[in-house]
Amino acid sequence: MHIAIIGCGQLARMLALAGWSMGIRFSFLAADTDDTRCVDGLGLVVRNTPGSTAESLYHALGQPNVITVEKEAVDTALLQGFVDKCTVAPSPGILHIIQHRARQKAFLDDNAIPTAPYFHLRSKDQLWDAVKALGFPLIIKACEQGYDGQHQWRLSNENETHALINGPIEIGDAIVETKLSFTKEVSVILARNTLGEVAVYCPTENTHVNGTLFVSIAPARELSESHQEQLSQITNTLVKAWDYVGVLAIECFIVDDKVVVNELAPRVHNSGHWTQDGAATSQFENHLRAICGRTLGATTDLAVTGMINLLGCTAPEELLSHAHAHFHWYNKTLRNERKMGHINFVCNDQEALAADIKLAIDLLKR
Amino acid sequence: MHIAIIGCGQLARMLALAGWSMGIRFSFLAADTDDTRCVDGLGLVVRNTPGSTAESLYHALGQPNVITVEKEAVDTALLQGFVDKCTVAPSPGILHIIQHRARQKAFLDDNAIPTAPYFHLRSKDQLWDAVKALGFPLIIKACEQGYDGQHQWRLSNENETHALINGPIEIGDAIVETKLSFTKEVSVILARNTLGEVAVYCPTENTHVNGTLFVSIAPARELSESHQEQLSQITNTLVKAWDYVGVLAIECFIVDDKVVVNELAPRVHNSGHWTQDGAATSQFENHLRAICGRTLGATTDLAVTGMINLLGCTAPEELLSHAHAHFHWYNKTLRNERKMGHINFVCNDQEALAADIKLAIDLLKR
Repeated sequence: MHIAIIGCGQLARMLALAGWSMGIRFSFLAADTDDTRCVDGLGLVVRNTPGSTAESLYHALGQPNVITVEKEAVDTALLQGFVDKCTVAPSPGILHIIQHRARQKAFLDDNAIPTAPYFHLRSKDQLWDAVKALGFPLIIKACEQGYDGQHQWRLSNENETHALINGPIEIGDAIVETKLSFTKEVSVILARNTLGEVAVYCPTENTHVNGTLFVSIAPARELSESHQEQLSQITNTLVKAWDYVGVLAIECFIVDDKVVVNELAPRVHNSGHWTQDGAATSQFENHLRAICGRTLGATTDLAVTGMINLLGCTAPEELLSHAHAHFHWYNKTLRNERKMGHINFVCNDQEALAADIKLAIDLLKR
Repeated sequence: MHIAIIGCGQLARMLALAGWSMGIRFSFLAADTDDTRCVDGLGLVVRNTPGSTAESLYHALGQPNVITVEKEAVDTALLQGFVDKCTVAPSPGILHIIQHRARQKAFLDDNAIPTAPYFHLRSKDQLWDAVKALGFPLIIKACEQGYDGQHQWRLSNENETHALINGPIEIGDAIVETKLSFTKEVSVILARNTLGEVAVYCPTENTHVNGTLFVSIAPARELSESHQEQLSQITNTLVKAWDYVGVLAIECFIVDDKVVVNELAPRVHNSGHWTQDGAATSQFENHLRAICGRTLGATTDLAVTGMINLLGCTAPEELLSHAHAHFHWYNKTLRNERKMGHINFVCNDQEALAADIKLAIDLLKR
């Protein structure tokens, strides 16, 4: 079995490391300027240089059995060109929807999946229409960028709106959303295979800093029965809505009694990294099983697990040496606030995990 | 951190795959004629060609921080030559004892650790002395070979003894042991780090076919309190007896009420492969933590886990697709009865595991 991954970051790295154990070979498609350190040594790296076609890249990648992605920002037209050559999962059509916030919002609306109220903005001139429709506070998110809180702007009042409209920042295609006052962020990671079988992990509780995930805790704490029920409904609706294949992450806000979908990610997800050490099957193994047409591995949580991202730093020896800690390193060049690696803490209960996370935050000086 | 491993088989492969996640680099020392497919791509492979010295190999290996082994049959004089250059773990002195059955037996005797009664044979002529001392049935094991039941001979009576003595088989340095009638085989895997900290996994129950491990089940079933207590005592005695660093496997027989040590393995061990999917920390990660001077990871069993070896075969799709199954493949050329890979089954209870193992044995037609 040979799988090619579009992308060469840490998610590609962890997919490959999971797959090497399973005897799967890998190749990677990198953009012209991508740093490929994460996947160096794990398989052939092919550059997507100008003039490349699906035909030429498919052969350069070594005629893989399956092509998958580690990110949503991919050229879906190129991906569509692979469809008659090998399995492509998730499908280009689904990626086309998810990679664009307005298309994703429309898809969620069409399936009656609750999300924050929004306005599809084509230019800054329309901002007042959005304010009129939604009121403050607002958050503007570019439709096709916005990874880890980039290309997002918050507006609390008319003065800030005037300043943004008259300022130098260019805002093109974007959605304007009501900024919800949520009590908790949770995500659900699921896998669906080519046979239509679905496996769902327990909800994960997430904490972000400056728009970037910092800590995940699984299972999420203090979810009511109603929250659990709504999460299940959302999950079921999604898997019935389309022929999704692979791991899918559903990021949600808990707003009092309601569960509201924030966004979807059509790939293995940072908030699922805990599954490497705390679940019966990791999200990486399950993504590979899903796209290879195998039955999925059990998604049972075997412990109470927490994940902490190493943002722009390595880990102090005291953390690496912790009996509950499992260190995952991405082999990247150190850069401010960059995701360099993560640590999973595998514990018997939430109390032990809370103590571990507190220690980690102290030692990382966050 | 850079670790060099003496050996290039599946144990080196699984150490490296565990270490890659942790950001550790690897190189491997292969014998002149070794097949290196298991570790291809996972680090530099250096051939131990005639005329090589510790000095030349240390530099060829890239001046690693730590040198470790994946097998006991290593040149301990060569290993000793590395000691002033980097950490060597386990120590050459301990490997010297364990790699030779008579020295290992003497060490166990010196520490009052129960083993099968034995006779140290220097030539075939002494076989009658061994018979006189021990009676039948006997098992002869070459002192320095005997991996997976190779170089072992069983004797049940005088006729067989005559035949062996007068036959063509050469037997040099060997031990002759009373062949114990055991009720169960179990092993204990432990790790001890450079700081002297020890972590012990739950006992594993093992089934062999033709001298090769076939199935492991963890935790071992139906061990009495007395068995558990004896296993603990043996473990404690061993870790106090020497400054062992790394993972150590203690293979034992349960002979009615008694626990008797069969043999030691100074390395990660096939009967510890279940820890990859069923323990809080795998034996591979813990070996690396131990030799790098880190605190060990928790050895808690998170599930009831079974391991089945793929002997001279791959696995049928139905097994790979099993929801409890995790497939580990070694990338070897297929050969009769060769260890090609293994599958770990992670279950909620022993009943579910027994059903999985039965299914696997049926599908593998063993």
